[in-house]
Amino acid sequence: MGPMEELIAAARGEIEVDLLLAGGHVANLLSGEVHRADVAIHKGRLAGFDCASARQVLELDGKILTPGFIDGHVHIESSMVTVPEYARAVVPRGTTTVIADPHEIANVWGEAGIAYMLQSSKDVPLNVFIMLPSCVPATNMETSGASLDADALAGLVHEERVLGLAEVMNYPGVIFRDPEVMKKLALARGKRIDGHAPGLTGRDLSAYISAGIHSDHECTTIDEAREKLCSGMYIMMREGSAARNLLDLLPLVTAKNARQFLFVSDDRHPADILNVGHIDFMVRAAIKQGLDPIIALQISSLNAARYFGLSDLGAIAPGYRADIAVLDGLEHPHVVQVIKDGKLVAEDGDLIAPLKAPVSAGQKSMQIGPISPRSFEIKAESGPARVIGVVPDQIITKSLQLAPKIQDGKVVSDIDRDMLKIAVVERHKATGNVGLGLVQGFGLRLGALASSVAHDSHNIVVVGVSDEEMLAAVMAVKQMGGGLFVMAEGKVKASLPLPVAGLLSEASMRDVAQGMVGCIDAAAKLGCKLADPFMTLSFLCLPVIPELKLTDRGLVDVKAFRFVPMFLGES
Amino acid sequence: MGPMEELIAAARGEIEVDLLLAGGHVANLLSGEVHRADVAIHKGRLAGFDCASARQVLELDGKILTPGFIDGHVHIESSMVTVPEYARAVVPRGTTTVIADPHEIANVWGEAGIAYMLQSSKDVPLNVFIMLPSCVPATNMETSGASLDADALAGLVHEERVLGLAEVMNYPGVIFRDPEVMKKLALARGKRIDGHAPGLTGRDLSAYISAGIHSDHECTTIDEAREKLCSGMYIMMREGSAARNLLDLLPLVTAKNARQFLFVSDDRHPADILNVGHIDFMVRAAIKQGLDPIIALQISSLNAARYFGLSDLGAIAPGYRADIAVLDGLEHPHVVQVIKDGKLVAEDGDLIAPLKAPVSAGQKSMQIGPISPRSFEIKAESGPARVIGVVPDQIITKSLQLAPKIQDGKVVSDIDRDMLKIAVVERHKATGNVGLGLVQGFGLRLGALASSVAHDSHNIVVVGVSDEEMLAAVMAVKQMGGGLFVMAEGKVKASLPLPVAGLLSEASMRDVAQGMVGCIDAAAKLGCKLADPFMTLSFLCLPVIPELKLTDRGLVDVKAFRFVPMFLGES
Repeated sequence: MGPMEELIAAARGEIEVDLLLAGGHVANLLSGEVHRADVAIHKGRLAGFDCASARQVLELDGKILTPGFIDGHVHIESSMVTVPEYARAVVPRGTTTVIADPHEIANVWGEAGIAYMLQSSKDVPLNVFIMLPSCVPATNMETSGASLDADALAGLVHEERVLGLAEVMNYPGVIFRDPEVMKKLALARGKRIDGHAPGLTGRDLSAYISAGIHSDHECTTIDEAREKLCSGMYIMMREGSAARNLLDLLPLVTAKNARQFLFVSDDRHPADILNVGHIDFMVRAAIKQGLDPIIALQISSLNAARYFGLSDLGAIAPGYRADIAVLDGLEHPHVVQVIKDGKLVAEDGDLIAPLKAPVSAGQKSMQIGPISPRSFEIKAESGPARVIGVVPDQIITKSLQLAPKIQDGKVVSDIDRDMLKIAVVERHKATGNVGLGLVQGFGLRLGALASSVAHDSHNIVVVGVSDEEMLAAVMAVKQMGGGLFVMAEGKVKASLPLPVAGLLSEASMRDVAQGMVGCIDAAAKLGCKLADPFMTLSFLCLPVIPELKLTDRGLVDVKAFRFVPMFLGES
Repeated sequence: MGPMEELIAAARGEIEVDLLLAGGHVANLLSGEVHRADVAIHKGRLAGFDCASARQVLELDGKILTPGFIDGHVHIESSMVTVPEYARAVVPRGTTTVIADPHEIANVWGEAGIAYMLQSSKDVPLNVFIMLPSCVPATNMETSGASLDADALAGLVHEERVLGLAEVMNYPGVIFRDPEVMKKLALARGKRIDGHAPGLTGRDLSAYISAGIHSDHECTTIDEAREKLCSGMYIMMREGSAARNLLDLLPLVTAKNARQFLFVSDDRHPADILNVGHIDFMVRAAIKQGLDPIIALQISSLNAARYFGLSDLGAIAPGYRADIAVLDGLEHPHVVQVIKDGKLVAEDGDLIAPLKAPVSAGQKSMQIGPISPRSFEIKAESGPARVIGVVPDQIITKSLQLAPKIQDGKVVSDIDRDMLKIAVVERHKATGNVGLGLVQGFGLRLGALASSVAHDSHNIVVVGVSDEEMLAAVMAVKQMGGGLFVMAEGKVKASLPLPVAGLLSEASMRDVAQGMVGCIDAAAKLGCKLADPFMTLSFLCLPVIPELKLTDRGLVDVKAFRFVPMFLGES
């Protein structure tokens, strides 16, 4: 018997089914009701609400069955773990499917990064679908590890688990019809194209959407979301670690438009996933804010399945994949058990399914040109200097103009005024590029912090009180194959190795979260006043977020979208 | 500029758009609100809610714009006209898309019939998508014009406008895993598969659905529809001419489950379309019964678009096809204008767009073997006879047992007891097959009625008071190339030629409706007491509807699903 024939026979009760979930209540997202039902499962699929006999029976004692949650847009790399370890953390929280945009790893490894994510997400108890990164590199003002043009994407778009084109951040490229962007949009025709258009409105928004871009996860206000909703977009309500928009957007949801909404995490850090939750947390938060539980659950699974054309996900009905979250109630639901492809894989917050050893990443990702303390030297010039002003807990920066501290004709870190040297060391192609600048707001009084997580090109960013320590921290990061590093007085204060592409650990999310805490604590002991200095560091290199940023190629005035010298010269 | 580039430029206001619909209110089925908006249209697509300048402006004075209606399941053949004439009738009523199952014409012409429907639906102001007939022939107890096995369907399934597999009526074939049925289901994988499962429930329903069959249009009660809805089906609420289920099913619709519902007409006769309406009528009826107008409009268009994966239909938003119905209000909406692909094509109930001449059908469809009055002779045998008992206005029949009138050892029509001879003459392959029987309920006192519309194989069915007149009526149908025919006393009383496959006229729907009335009136003058004797006739040959039916191969006991002799023999 083929699989379809066998499932039909199982549904009819002609053969014993694999598993019966007995005595539960189904949150039926199709009928909009909660009803009592036994759920028969065979060969990983739902067979029906009844069976003749079952090899195994799981008693649910009135608990609620809902389709496994779907995260509609996530960069798994933000969790800093490999896909299996990511699964270990999110699956027990009820997430059985994620739509991943491997934008970060693609900036490092290009097509090989996407292949790695596809490969490493096989045989995990989590469906990982891929949206192809549309903007690698993010800009031409930095050196990334790879460049994915339309031809490169064309070789990937027909892969089995590839659903389309991920967040098209290059909205000017769309509305001004950049030929390469048009080619990328054309090759995703018939598939899904996700948007990323913060603040885009009016005719430009219409133009962007008319190109076939049908979702957005960057809405921060009701008005912005309403215009995008009215104009044809699915609204992905994001609750990441940095950007948290869920509570602001929820009031827009009504029973009549709810199908256009999804929950997404975008970038969610280990500690938030472990301590607060994932999509399960968004479901609780939405219900707490007054959303009908059935609608909250539709948003958590069915809507994403429909948007992405995943026709056998998002509902509990015959023929669907048996991906089910078992909830302890509907008022303040917690996930107590998770069924994935018909097997009990998690219970009481822990994954109980075995995880395969991680796929070997294979590829190196620390190709640094010859550097020395001299690479960090900044020759003093006349006039005040442009200084990156950190805005605590935000990813924007201020562009300050201050007189730097000068010694022997060189700019040096000024501890008393908290004006430290910052550098971005290219690490993909051994170009030897080192971008140099000054930053205010870290508060370090000694030592240096370095990290290979630095959006979007993920070169090594380092801030420190001396050139020697900055160099030492960079070399330590290189030696780990990537990661976070804190040093002072010639000693390691804390480190978190991220050997996979310089972005991911192969340890568990719990270990990574502890490692993060260790690095943050160590930085605090060196005088750092920021809540998460590594998050701040990681966005100082992203030249699409205002005002002043640093790449391996130099200081960028983001508003003018051009390189600027550090010194302003005599006025 | 390519089409996408041009639309983007139009949306941005860089170029003059083709048309601005000014001063209307948009029924925004995505946001669930009605809002004031100008709608800019360019090259047949929506450009946005604003424009810099427009070549043409249509003032809407507060009228309501809603996406053009979509009929989710229709046999166009039931309207007895060609596709262009069908469009002339339904487009002014707001229908801009139909999902057609060319089951009838496929039973006559096979693949050529489907090709004809695809061909003749090009260049009409109506989107015609095709679901491939899954059950041709309907049974092996009749002679059809063609047989479409899985291999034949495989050659059609990738045609541009083919969306999947139409109503899988052969539910035993599904649940008992008939290999040919399994092959058909497998080839439609990844496309849509529509169901047709009246009364199917419990495990058998689960089995049927688990095969990937995700819609049903045969629900007649709330309970039946609820079970199918809960089990994963889209519920197509049907309001045909014979089967009318809309008002019975509407109470099941809630805001939380409404997306699972569609409006469909299935089989709707010319007079009903012209006098009562099409999907527009269902919208009015639903609103009148208390359904929220936005939900009614979502059911009328968006839901079908989503179900069938028609990603640029069903909403008024940038990038969507500009298929729009303009309504005079929302309380009791009538369609006053229709925009199709950005052009005003209908106004005040009339199509104003030019229609191309119909495609030549090409193929003959009246291949009748040699027949004579003797072909209609029934030799008397002993015992009572099985007689088809007509149930007025229904498509089921009773199986009666009565003593027939016998003359000279032959069974003859008995006018006084209203027991008339009925015959089904094979007309596809000139087999010379003539199935013979007796029917009670027509009430003819003279003459004969004949028709080449006879579900599902569409042989010629004839009922009459004498063998000579039955033969003459059949030959008249043959001579017309198919159609309806009423004769008496050697004279034509009325006729309606249906020269396309013996099913369709090339005249307008209005002319066909008048022709139908003429035939029914003529039959009434011959004593016929049935409201629509030709509808009744057309279902007397369908051996899947109980109890006793007649095909060209003989009498069928539908419950036993076998041929039976007319005479029961001595008891």
